[in-house]
Amino acid sequence: MIVRGAPAIGVSAAYGMVLGAAEYKGDDVEGFIKHLEKVSELLKGTRPTAVNLFWAIERMLKVAYNNRQASVEDIKDLLLKEADRMAQEDVETNRRIGYFGQQLLQDGAVVLTHCNAGALATVGYGTALGVIRAAREVGKNISVYADETRPYLQGARLTAWELMEEGIPVTLITDSMAGYFMKKGIISAVIVGADRIAANGDVANKIGTYTLAVLAKENRVPFYVAAPLSTLDLSIESGDDIPIEERDEREVTHIGGVRIAPYGVKVANPAFDVTPNQYVTAIITDAGVVYPPYKQNLQKLVNKVD
Amino acid sequence: MIVRGAPAIGVSAAYGMVLGAAEYKGDDVEGFIKHLEKVSELLKGTRPTAVNLFWAIERMLKVAYNNRQASVEDIKDLLLKEADRMAQEDVETNRRIGYFGQQLLQDGAVVLTHCNAGALATVGYGTALGVIRAAREVGKNISVYADETRPYLQGARLTAWELMEEGIPVTLITDSMAGYFMKKGIISAVIVGADRIAANGDVANKIGTYTLAVLAKENRVPFYVAAPLSTLDLSIESGDDIPIEERDEREVTHIGGVRIAPYGVKVANPAFDVTPNQYVTAIITDAGVVYPPYKQNLQKLVNKVD
Repeated sequence: MIVRGAPAIGVSAAYGMVLGAAEYKGDDVEGFIKHLEKVSELLKGTRPTAVNLFWAIERMLKVAYNNRQASVEDIKDLLLKEADRMAQEDVETNRRIGYFGQQLLQDGAVVLTHCNAGALATVGYGTALGVIRAAREVGKNISVYADETRPYLQGARLTAWELMEEGIPVTLITDSMAGYFMKKGIISAVIVGADRIAANGDVANKIGTYTLAVLAKENRVPFYVAAPLSTLDLSIESGDDIPIEERDEREVTHIGGVRIAPYGVKVANPAFDVTPNQYVTAIITDAGVVYPPYKQNLQKLVNKVD
Repeated sequence: MIVRGAPAIGVSAAYGMVLGAAEYKGDDVEGFIKHLEKVSELLKGTRPTAVNLFWAIERMLKVAYNNRQASVEDIKDLLLKEADRMAQEDVETNRRIGYFGQQLLQDGAVVLTHCNAGALATVGYGTALGVIRAAREVGKNISVYADETRPYLQGARLTAWELMEEGIPVTLITDSMAGYFMKKGIISAVIVGADRIAANGDVANKIGTYTLAVLAKENRVPFYVAAPLSTLDLSIESGDDIPIEERDEREVTHIGGVRIAPYGVKVANPAFDVTPNQYVTAIITDAGVVYPPYKQNLQKLVNKVD
């Protein structure tokens, strides 16, 4: 949880592979590849929900597999170059997400966001916050309501800070207030990131996202998901198959080291939830905006890019 | 905010009137009544949303108005007796709410509740938690999911504690997790208290209640409001006319004295929201369970009681 945000997790995993590679001291390529596979299994066990982790690791392994004829040292160099490329691509990817996404926002829009899908969750620029940045860059006056995002408070600690740093007007609210402001007609759009998107468009993202999606539908507020294509997992049909990480109960019982709940209380702490596709107005990717029906249109987009 | 929970606020206001009455040192009844009216204006300004405050104060004033022929000292005695009566009545009222409400819960039910509508929000027994207590007393096996209820954490600090003290199984979750557990089919019913109910059945209650109501409707989970008839305000037609208390931003930016948000961040902190009547499956009162259409059926109930 030192690294968070699906794209940042992906790029970190790529560099994790580089570090893991450096540990191998021999010159036997097949032995080296076996070692890399072990490292990749280790890394895959860290965060089960974010698919970018698996995507980044597979991409790194492919570099090794495709260069079996090279020396161990050369493959190590190629792995570092691939990780650097992924870090660079991440910012470009987010700029493209921003480019497509900002077209969905009108001048004066008030965007509600959840968790942190910003520069602090990616290598830079951000996905959901990238859309907001891009809209500001073309001169639109955008302001933001940021959910604090309990239990880990990414909204209060990261999103609010990131937006303030950039001079983007932000109002911090608790998660329980989002519905109040939607019902009041103050929110023009909800934009969130994603940890994994199934083939049918179901979206796994930070716990509380599903609630926002239901509230948005009920209040006729568009609900957008901003995520790179690497977040797409066409290998799973629906969100039911996405594993949900259960995290330490101390995240709920303590805040900043202060206990806020009785000793011995039973706690549940699922870190993510799944938003069924029918609540998602559009998915904003680096290859364009995708609308329902997602099963067809996501596949079409992937075919076009491949 | 030292006293919280609508019924507890009502009874406290009654004793506030007793204390205010004691301050009057003369023996002029008309002067005494004018003094009481001033005290009542002061008390009315403390918490604008909870209607029980106004109800309790009006009931105390009526004692004075109806006894103009008595001495100031006698009226002071009558006021104390009236306050004592209200405190006693509160527990009886909650037991009646429990009696009617528990019939809506099946053995094995898992109830989600928000904020604290328990013994700690009333003189004793509780409204929403009174229904759970009553169901347990008739031998039903009931367990509870308690929202922590940001920003003031009444769920984590009070409800979880109150239920644990009584040996009722409780799982503490953040507000953002309620939708997750409803969608999973784990929650059989939502029961909340109320700070004010309009003539049409719109319910003002702790911020986040509206969100739960929308989630409950979407997931076909019954949504019950448990509240004494004194919470009913037939003088206002709909929830749009209920004033919403905006509270100190420190409740959002700090938890247990620890700052959790950037310095200077803009914050919104509405303490209550209004749940429109179409989301409310039933209102559980001390005079019986009321179903839609609320405008007619609430009026009918009040006519029957009066």
